Amino acid sequence: MEKAVLITIGDEILSGNTVDTNSNFIATELKNIGIKVTQILTISDEIETIKEALNVAFETGDLVITTGGLGPTRDDKTKKALAEYFNDEIALDEVTFNHLKGYMERRGRADILERNKEQAFVPTKSIVFQNHYGTAPCMMMELDEKLCYSLPGVPYEVKPLIKDQIIPYLQQRFSLHYIHTRIVSVVGIPESILADTIEDWELALPENIALSYLPVGTRVKLRLTASGENEEQLKQRTEEEIQKLLPLVEGHVIAVSEDKIENILAEMLTERNLTISTAESCTGGELAKMITSVSGSSKYFLGGIVPYATEKKIKILNVSKETVDQFTVVSEEVAQEMAKGCQKLFETHISLSTTGVAGPGKGEDGKDIGTVYYTIRINDKAETFKLYMPHLERVDFMNFVSQKVIQDLVSLLINS
Amino acid sequence: MEKAVLITIGDEILSGNTVDTNSNFIATELKNIGIKVTQILTISDEIETIKEALNVAFETGDLVITTGGLGPTRDDKTKKALAEYFNDEIALDEVTFNHLKGYMERRGRADILERNKEQAFVPTKSIVFQNHYGTAPCMMMELDEKLCYSLPGVPYEVKPLIKDQIIPYLQQRFSLHYIHTRIVSVVGIPESILADTIEDWELALPENIALSYLPVGTRVKLRLTASGENEEQLKQRTEEEIQKLLPLVEGHVIAVSEDKIENILAEMLTERNLTISTAESCTGGELAKMITSVSGSSKYFLGGIVPYATEKKIKILNVSKETVDQFTVVSEEVAQEMAKGCQKLFETHISLSTTGVAGPGKGEDGKDIGTVYYTIRINDKAETFKLYMPHLERVDFMNFVSQKVIQDLVSLLINS
Repeated sequence: MEKAVLITIGDEILSGNTVDTNSNFIATELKNIGIKVTQILTISDEIETIKEALNVAFETGDLVITTGGLGPTRDDKTKKALAEYFNDEIALDEVTFNHLKGYMERRGRADILERNKEQAFVPTKSIVFQNHYGTAPCMMMELDEKLCYSLPGVPYEVKPLIKDQIIPYLQQRFSLHYIHTRIVSVVGIPESILADTIEDWELALPENIALSYLPVGTRVKLRLTASGENEEQLKQRTEEEIQKLLPLVEGHVIAVSEDKIENILAEMLTERNLTISTAESCTGGELAKMITSVSGSSKYFLGGIVPYATEKKIKILNVSKETVDQFTVVSEEVAQEMAKGCQKLFETHISLSTTGVAGPGKGEDGKDIGTVYYTIRINDKAETFKLYMPHLERVDFMNFVSQKVIQDLVSLLINS
Repeated sequence: MEKAVLITIGDEILSGNTVDTNSNFIATELKNIGIKVTQILTISDEIETIKEALNVAFETGDLVITTGGLGPTRDDKTKKALAEYFNDEIALDEVTFNHLKGYMERRGRADILERNKEQAFVPTKSIVFQNHYGTAPCMMMELDEKLCYSLPGVPYEVKPLIKDQIIPYLQQRFSLHYIHTRIVSVVGIPESILADTIEDWELALPENIALSYLPVGTRVKLRLTASGENEEQLKQRTEEEIQKLLPLVEGHVIAVSEDKIENILAEMLTERNLTISTAESCTGGELAKMITSVSGSSKYFLGGIVPYATEKKIKILNVSKETVDQFTVVSEEVAQEMAKGCQKLFETHISLSTTGVAGPGKGEDGKDIGTVYYTIRINDKAETFKLYMPHLERVDFMNFVSQKVIQDLVSLLINS
């Protein structure tokens, strides 16, 4: 039991209406208990297609997890396909029906039970994992020691089903290999130069440690994945390899364990007892959101402001009108004054500011789309940077700039 | 030429490290020119696996697009697999090499050309589409009238390649069916009741118009996809069906064309000449970011604030200390005062406020995780709502609440 195949069912993914985030979540959870996802199949909601996909999936996987195609509306055919594939019948399951009844009643929706009753019909051979956050149950089927789970498609129903029920079940049932992952974040070296620099080290890695390059914006994440039976040994072996790697990329490493840049920042700020605030124009709140997405961020993030209109920058952050008139609102000078005003408003050690043109429309002052200035102010020292990213779409631009600002702050903190 | 299969290559997706957003983008772009994605295969970066996937893909697709597996590092094997699959050799392409040279020189990186030179090696039968935002070229192969495109994996390289080069090429080469999509957004009716309500209408839809239910939070998007040869006729036919649908769901429809809630809001605010501002605690900037993610939002969004620390709510938004002491910071009363202070600070017609406990840690005042109060203030009228979403993870919570706040504002505006 080591390989899993995920099947995502539903036209909303194929048509581009929805991004498939379930597969990402499930793959991560499975990886943590040593199960490797070898394929993800995204298919349409047709009985024959689903049966074919199950065939393909079981060729390589010992475990198949399907998501989607279990809702109460007529475009959902997964359950029928499952029953046909496993030579089974669909029948009303009393336990599931009672669970569903309770679920609906607690929500004061007993009146719509008729249509929902269909959801308590499951293949008779299936073992049901009850869904506490929705009406579609999760069904487990077994065939020749191979397992198939069928889940609904809504991410917030999928997450607890996987985390609280399926993962513990799999762990208990199978004795699984231990997996250890470490991520080293490198900045300031392009991927190709980095690959040259660490080639000898990479080729000398032991067989049970795999390396991947994961570029994120201007950062490259080097991921080491080690697998084996002895947890302690694995951790030690991985740490040894990282210690060999670090001198090769000296001065470019911003983290050796945490993965997300906002978590790396969280560690540093907490450790050094520093507080932070943000003043955003072109990032529109994304920077604050990224920082506050970390649990416990209220300890260091005191507040943020998005003074979108120029007059608000002047009024609330004390940016001088003369500076705006002389240099335009998208300028190094305005970024600096924003950071200064922000630091004062929120009384923090660190403040970050962004001002730029996210596009696709030109900025009011005629600056080119994709131009952004940002200031990082630590106590009474400020540094301002310029970025030019004309090829990014609006939301990607907001995200990229926010990532970069935090990344540069982390670099500054390391070297200070 | 109507069916496409997408192949996503790379262990970073299978391992759960990266969410596959490329497929979503490509599927949407193809749909717009009448090409339907019938399958998405996500596979690992192994030569045999890639060749097998190409086999499977060409069984059902006339067009195959692969992303990923073209970087300069050693875990990329796509190009070799392509050459083997198409019985071809890999050789240096002069045009691609010169393009690459120019690309690197413009970035002042002529020194790292040696490793990158590999990227100018392509299958000899391929037609190259040059990549203006990265070093991996896009290659097109053709076999028995079937087309295969191989793209890099970085989203901001994929987007312009698809949009500016591949889509125009496909449009020119094939005479494609016209596709027309409309989305009707329904709130306040659970999916199952909605399905019952419109069942007769749905069953009577003409064959060339397909209906899908896309639930997003507490909203259900009804998507009508019509395909045919005459653009005008299609539009008219779809509009007729929507006009039949509307009376069935009267009072519950918040939009009949725009898809994203922030775009629906954008239309309304622009039309009515209203301005808006935000004061966020538990959503941490996500609400502002969602509003500003719409191009042109600076016309109505004057600013936002994230007064994360309680003292900042008091100082900047004039929330009274007594209110906080009496009701705690996560309360209806504080939400109301935040919205009032926000409206005053930014001088807007509308202000939105959120205060809650995103978790996973308990709020400082002991309120349950997942509790949130939000106020929508329009001129001098304010309404406060409570939500309780204990099962959502932190980032999902921030996103769900922001969606819901905008959705409720839209409903209020419609009924005012």
